[in-house]
Amino acid sequence: MTETNPAEQPRISRVVIIGAGLIGASIGCALSAAGYTVHLRDHKISHARVAAGLGAGTIDPPISAEVDLVVVAVPPGAIADLVVHSLQIYSNATVTDVGSVKAGVLNALWQRDVDLDRYVGSHPMAGSHRSGPMTAHPELFVDRTWVVTPHRRSTAESVARVRAAVRACQASEVIMDVDDHDAAVARVSHLPHLMSVLVAGHLTQVPEQDLMLAGQGLRDVTRIAGSDPELWEQILGANSNAILEELRDVQDHLGLLIKAIEAAPTSADLRSQLERGVAGTRKIGGKHGAAPMRYSEIVVAIPDSPGALGRLFAEVGAAGVNVEDISIEHDPVREIGYLALSVAPEQADALVETMLSHGWAVL
Amino acid sequence: MTETNPAEQPRISRVVIIGAGLIGASIGCALSAAGYTVHLRDHKISHARVAAGLGAGTIDPPISAEVDLVVVAVPPGAIADLVVHSLQIYSNATVTDVGSVKAGVLNALWQRDVDLDRYVGSHPMAGSHRSGPMTAHPELFVDRTWVVTPHRRSTAESVARVRAAVRACQASEVIMDVDDHDAAVARVSHLPHLMSVLVAGHLTQVPEQDLMLAGQGLRDVTRIAGSDPELWEQILGANSNAILEELRDVQDHLGLLIKAIEAAPTSADLRSQLERGVAGTRKIGGKHGAAPMRYSEIVVAIPDSPGALGRLFAEVGAAGVNVEDISIEHDPVREIGYLALSVAPEQADALVETMLSHGWAVL
Repeated sequence: MTETNPAEQPRISRVVIIGAGLIGASIGCALSAAGYTVHLRDHKISHARVAAGLGAGTIDPPISAEVDLVVVAVPPGAIADLVVHSLQIYSNATVTDVGSVKAGVLNALWQRDVDLDRYVGSHPMAGSHRSGPMTAHPELFVDRTWVVTPHRRSTAESVARVRAAVRACQASEVIMDVDDHDAAVARVSHLPHLMSVLVAGHLTQVPEQDLMLAGQGLRDVTRIAGSDPELWEQILGANSNAILEELRDVQDHLGLLIKAIEAAPTSADLRSQLERGVAGTRKIGGKHGAAPMRYSEIVVAIPDSPGALGRLFAEVGAAGVNVEDISIEHDPVREIGYLALSVAPEQADALVETMLSHGWAVL
Repeated sequence: MTETNPAEQPRISRVVIIGAGLIGASIGCALSAAGYTVHLRDHKISHARVAAGLGAGTIDPPISAEVDLVVVAVPPGAIADLVVHSLQIYSNATVTDVGSVKAGVLNALWQRDVDLDRYVGSHPMAGSHRSGPMTAHPELFVDRTWVVTPHRRSTAESVARVRAAVRACQASEVIMDVDDHDAAVARVSHLPHLMSVLVAGHLTQVPEQDLMLAGQGLRDVTRIAGSDPELWEQILGANSNAILEELRDVQDHLGLLIKAIEAAPTSADLRSQLERGVAGTRKIGGKHGAAPMRYSEIVVAIPDSPGALGRLFAEVGAAGVNVEDISIEHDPVREIGYLALSVAPEQADALVETMLSHGWAVL
């Protein structure tokens, strides 16, 4: 990780973005807003047109030699070819991509007959459940982590150009080696995804009746397992070595857990695994990057009607209480939900009083 | 699973509840509201007093022979002793408990010198992050699953009394064998908990820097791993055989997954495991017990101030849009959050238009 040096001001003014989906079009919007001239390319010309209409840039072709930076924002399988193509066409440009796995692309590029001095990978940690240029937004990257992954041949000028673009998108830049990056996403994203898949997959063997006993915990653990298998096959395939290392470690710990429960259900080994889990959850940062904080949770029963949430939040707002987090759990049958409001502990009593005085059922 | 027979009307009018925590006191509130006379017992007399103050019953002692039903609502380790004690003291009463694992208690009871005809286990699937009698609520069980677990010696009258109490709490009763119950909670609660513990525990080995790349998925998968290790050690210890069976199956599938990734990252085996995960998530019921439904998600940037949510929900409510689910994701640094609103697909466009017309940044 390297600190930002605001003194670096590389000359970039003309950018080509290849791929006008959510990420590409959002980068276009952010860079256009920051004063860059952005040219949009997409094999679906309609996507480029929509993105241009949203302020992401122009669909007019650039003069190749005038381009300073090319951003390749296409699906994983198409990245390497388009990076090579861009290095050839735009002879003065730095080329970056925004793929979520970095080493595989770099290794593929090493095999190609092309000079990689002007290539620097990157990975913005932003996205949305929605996709396509219609969802583009210039603020998509604001204060999100954006990893920049220089390799041993990247020139300082190329790295500086990519970092300048990251800063222009108002993202929080982190410089990492490609292998460190891929190990990190294996640990914090790909491994959790596969474990969620295992738990969700196990449900396919479970009698229907058992699912009547399921609660919010099961929903939380299995939520990401519902993601697109085709996309995840590509991501996991591109990062298989790093993922295997993490999976084997978890396999070891699963073996230890089974042994601990076999040996003596209330053994110190089981307890220490449970405590290791608690310690792990505390390592994940809390809100706004601050140390994790305990909030007080107030649970209110709410009727399932359009006006109810509006009335409730208006009353909460009028009481001057700042809600830190909210979640809704629905009753499986009754047309009612439970709204959990997380607030700073010192505001909890005031909130309960406010809710009760307005006739809400506080659980 | 047995259907409810509304014609069953066993004679119960006087109930003793032992343990005035969240569950015991809430049962007291519900049964009192339903017209039963409830006597509260707790080794902390202050808890019984608080519960009585909330309408859960009286702290006056009953005439033992007049008691029809005893509900033992104490921590797992204390259940068997108090069931035996209750069968001895309340000679005409049916005795139930509300522990989350059933076979261990029943096996312990078989070892005791007591007639179990009048004992029927049960397990209400309700709770809260909060605990203690202050959090008691008569509606805690409304439409929640409440499993009743008769054994081979339970009399029909005893089963009918417990079921009558479950119905008086407006819970949704499910009759299961103790072993079926314990296998079910191993599958839908205890196994997911341990997998969450493994993922969270793995984070203790991860470099701090990697966690800058963590997103909402990791938080979801690891949330329940933050639960009280002491309580979970008791729960897991009491259900170790059923849990081991599930863990070994997941261990097998983890082995298959590792083999699939080792063999060929884009093999059909990996894809089929990912698709099995998607199928598993679809087995979990959606809102109100209906088939899972896809909602459209609208993401809005909201400033982190007391009035913002109130204003937003007032506008949503005024637009007549029914929000099905909400979640907030906070930016790690900036004082801003993203609010995801799930709405029926046909209401999505109207909601986006409303939000934009009120000046919100829709992502």
